[in-house]
Amino acid sequence: MTAIACCQLAPRIGELDANRGRTAAAIVAAAERGARVVVLPELCVSGYCFADASEARRLAEPLDGPTVAAWAQLAAQREVVVVGGLCEVDEEGALRNSAVVLDAGGLRAVYRKAHLWDRETLVFTAGDEPPPVVETAVGRIGVMVCYDLEFPEWVRLAALAGADLLCAPANWPAAAHPPGERPAEVVRVQAAASVNRMFVAACDRTGTERGAEWIGGSVIVDPSGFPLAGPATPDDETTLIADCSLGDARDKRISAHNDVLADRRPELYAPMTIV
Amino acid sequence: MTAIACCQLAPRIGELDANRGRTAAAIVAAAERGARVVVLPELCVSGYCFADASEARRLAEPLDGPTVAAWAQLAAQREVVVVGGLCEVDEEGALRNSAVVLDAGGLRAVYRKAHLWDRETLVFTAGDEPPPVVETAVGRIGVMVCYDLEFPEWVRLAALAGADLLCAPANWPAAAHPPGERPAEVVRVQAAASVNRMFVAACDRTGTERGAEWIGGSVIVDPSGFPLAGPATPDDETTLIADCSLGDARDKRISAHNDVLADRRPELYAPMTIV
Repeated sequence: MTAIACCQLAPRIGELDANRGRTAAAIVAAAERGARVVVLPELCVSGYCFADASEARRLAEPLDGPTVAAWAQLAAQREVVVVGGLCEVDEEGALRNSAVVLDAGGLRAVYRKAHLWDRETLVFTAGDEPPPVVETAVGRIGVMVCYDLEFPEWVRLAALAGADLLCAPANWPAAAHPPGERPAEVVRVQAAASVNRMFVAACDRTGTERGAEWIGGSVIVDPSGFPLAGPATPDDETTLIADCSLGDARDKRISAHNDVLADRRPELYAPMTIV
Repeated sequence: MTAIACCQLAPRIGELDANRGRTAAAIVAAAERGARVVVLPELCVSGYCFADASEARRLAEPLDGPTVAAWAQLAAQREVVVVGGLCEVDEEGALRNSAVVLDAGGLRAVYRKAHLWDRETLVFTAGDEPPPVVETAVGRIGVMVCYDLEFPEWVRLAALAGADLLCAPANWPAAAHPPGERPAEVVRVQAAASVNRMFVAACDRTGTERGAEWIGGSVIVDPSGFPLAGPATPDDETTLIADCSLGDARDKRISAHNDVLADRRPELYAPMTIV
């Protein structure tokens, strides 16, 4: 069993040092509770609701900046895998809504969000690379960010690349849902896990920011599509932890004659790529 | 508003005339309640749990057989669209797990299940054609069958082809789910609707058949992914009816800058097709 943590934090926009400290404390606390993988929210050091691109640029940092350094140090000291969201300025000066994967070996992967949400389109350059899948000490970890999860084609790429666990930093804007219903964001994560028979850990944020509210629905889902921890509520910062038998994700069989990946008929899906 | 019906029936294997009569009565009753689209379960005239392929062949019929004739007559008389599942013997003698779409114009489309479930692989030839989308008096109706729904690539094809409403005859075998959780089959339908912003009507069956039980989870879901009717329970035959504003499915926008289909990046999804 591997304990997976989602640290649903409440960053405050622009408070880089304080937010970075908040992530460090959360990583340490999760590790002390036994977590081997710690997932943090999207843009969890900068905050999310930028007034404009120039404000985002002031709050951005490169991969050799202080956030990656801090997370790398903690990943090594605590022997945990850290997956967190970062407002990145890349090597060409473009702003990216990124997620990084770190372990005892340092920075293992950077992913730039490929499907941008709402006003992010005014700030960030979308990534053009598929979700990375990183071989770690605890299993294969895939990564994408928030709205990416709503594209089943994208989730499938991570599964086809062998992800046992998909980690998704998110900032899910609050949206209405009927009484008694789970947020659609959570439902989509459940379906994404089940159609691919992999674990999914989606780490949302909380805390009002410039008037914006959040679903606060962090959730860790098993390969059958059922929550092992969460969904959380937006009421407070909270850390979810779930014990996951990540090897279960290697078995894609669901009947004597069925396997969710082998049953795909990609030769028939080609029309998707020409639209 | 268009009233959509799912008639969750309990066919009895091999009782062709009785089962056909059951479907006819259900279509009439749904039409009298105002339904303009009536969805029936998968294999709802033959039954599902065939001992072997030769039994399935004895229970199969061609597209010019009595079931399509009966449904076509009712579709014309009652001015409803009928979508139902049929054990078909095709023009080359192959057995197909099919769904047909009929309206006042007669047989509008036949779809042959492309992703076969479990022992269906021993009986049926899988279809090689994408889910059809039929322009009807009430809107554009796409069709697929049961396990097909678990391939988001397949559902996406129907959405890209313009389906306002996806109708899916199903026979969902009973499976365990944690207390308080919806069946994963229902969750996947909810996600399928929401990521494509289309209505989905999945019509399951009920009634013990040769020891097999069913989820009985028929459900009609709106483009936000929330049930308008159902999910049903396996306790009884039941007809769900939901009033759907099918035109809502033409609007794929979900923020000032987002559209669930336009935001796809198919040029990046190509690796899917070469696996």
